[in-house]
Amino acid sequence: MSELLVVGSLAYDTISSPSGHVEKTLGGSANYFSLAASHFAQVRVVGVVGDDYADQDLNLLKNRRVDIEGLQVKEGKTFHWEGKYEGDMNEAITLKTQLNVFEHFNPNLPEKYKTTPYAFLANIHPELQLKVLEQLKSPKLIGSDTMNFWIQSQKETLSKVFKKVDLILINEGEAKMFTGKGNAISAAQELGKLGPKVIVIKRGEYGFVMWTKDGFHILPAYPVSEVVDPTGAGDTFAGAFFGYISQQNKGLDYSVIRQACLRGTILASFTVESFGTKSLAAVKVDDIEARLEKYKTIIA
Amino acid sequence: MSELLVVGSLAYDTISSPSGHVEKTLGGSANYFSLAASHFAQVRVVGVVGDDYADQDLNLLKNRRVDIEGLQVKEGKTFHWEGKYEGDMNEAITLKTQLNVFEHFNPNLPEKYKTTPYAFLANIHPELQLKVLEQLKSPKLIGSDTMNFWIQSQKETLSKVFKKVDLILINEGEAKMFTGKGNAISAAQELGKLGPKVIVIKRGEYGFVMWTKDGFHILPAYPVSEVVDPTGAGDTFAGAFFGYISQQNKGLDYSVIRQACLRGTILASFTVESFGTKSLAAVKVDDIEARLEKYKTIIA
Repeated sequence: MSELLVVGSLAYDTISSPSGHVEKTLGGSANYFSLAASHFAQVRVVGVVGDDYADQDLNLLKNRRVDIEGLQVKEGKTFHWEGKYEGDMNEAITLKTQLNVFEHFNPNLPEKYKTTPYAFLANIHPELQLKVLEQLKSPKLIGSDTMNFWIQSQKETLSKVFKKVDLILINEGEAKMFTGKGNAISAAQELGKLGPKVIVIKRGEYGFVMWTKDGFHILPAYPVSEVVDPTGAGDTFAGAFFGYISQQNKGLDYSVIRQACLRGTILASFTVESFGTKSLAAVKVDDIEARLEKYKTIIA
Repeated sequence: MSELLVVGSLAYDTISSPSGHVEKTLGGSANYFSLAASHFAQVRVVGVVGDDYADQDLNLLKNRRVDIEGLQVKEGKTFHWEGKYEGDMNEAITLKTQLNVFEHFNPNLPEKYKTTPYAFLANIHPELQLKVLEQLKSPKLIGSDTMNFWIQSQKETLSKVFKKVDLILINEGEAKMFTGKGNAISAAQELGKLGPKVIVIKRGEYGFVMWTKDGFHILPAYPVSEVVDPTGAGDTFAGAFFGYISQQNKGLDYSVIRQACLRGTILASFTVESFGTKSLAAVKVDDIEARLEKYKTIIA
């Protein structure tokens, strides 16, 4: 299996949606990414948790053969995010952000991680994304995500990151905010001008737009009757997408990246069916294959 | 060519969008529908205009071989709508509605129209939609649209219409409003319970969701870099969709209705590229075929 490094957050999330409310459920971009990617690749996690982080939550990753050597455990509390969804399920309203141990996170890579061929810089401070980049020795492919907060406060540093990566995966609202464009199509074209060969704009329940120099690939999300909690769907998409690309190990072959998008949307469809990582963590290979077959009939 | 009747509005629209502003440009559901459907079927229009309606606007339909015997010309002004788009290009903000001659519109069908095999009830008062239905003699297929105003004020009458038709084409916000459901997937399933065999939920730049008892067919819109004016895109979709079904004349054959959706999204992509009906009116068969081929590579 190809090695795939992810740097991102591990968190406890408190979430309200029209389907209910949960307190401190497992979350964080690195968790969603790793659980999804682990179906396709040997994942290595770089992140930080507090001493309140539950063993069962660590075991969740270990059981999926995720390498957690790069996971730091620090004195203090794990990152805690509180948010809600109302009406528009594609946009979370942040109620509280307690960075806790995440505030002074310094992503030092274990020696063996430095030669990881595939790496994904999930949503963390762009300075930290650059720090991770600097430690990697001749990687094959680098991808990156971000969020509105960094676009508003660290746009220059973020632009540096975007210019150094091969793929950007970003949600629609953030892509429009970064580029000042009015829709995903023109935003993707604009982001492509920065240098990355592939831009994937995640549209929540509306699926994704992938841009490459060869054109667009656009598809809807796998249909889900009740979206319980969309948190982590984008990170799940990124994990399955990048995991599949790592597994195939053919670089940015056009057929591979299109197939990677399908895996992204299928895995994300599981994530949204429960609060937190619950549904995603329970997914089996057969579940993925079954939805993939059904999805193909829906878009045929 | 199969005959296809449409009853709806013919209007002059004043529209502002991030791309500019136009005064009293040609609009109205029946115009968009007819221009799109005329590529596939012999369209018959039922509607009303004022004595200010320009000859060139009538000629636009005549030149597309649209039968306008059912078009009433009344003393007074043509229906005038004023609206704007800000940020969310999928939702118009209505600034002014002057019904004018449309206020006392009574859709009396010319005798020869009564045996039209295919009929579409575009967005007008549900009582008028019922009046048209009553005049039709053993139609093969009936479709219907509506708008938020009628859902709020005439829900019971509207439900009667929906129970009598074979297809509902409705936009996403209105489908959610009518059903109380949180997304297009569950809203489509709920609308299907009323009796229609096909539900098409129009999602603007995100494409469409088609529900039938055999499952979902979901695809994105044809990508357009700059949406100048989305007014009429849904009516255009409906026209091309219903026009194609009429042309094929095989009822609700699953392959036909899926192909009809593709025509809907392609024709709508032209409509949004200019204010009013300008781009749509200029479309040639070759333009449709070229986008259709490109679209197939985008969703492949």
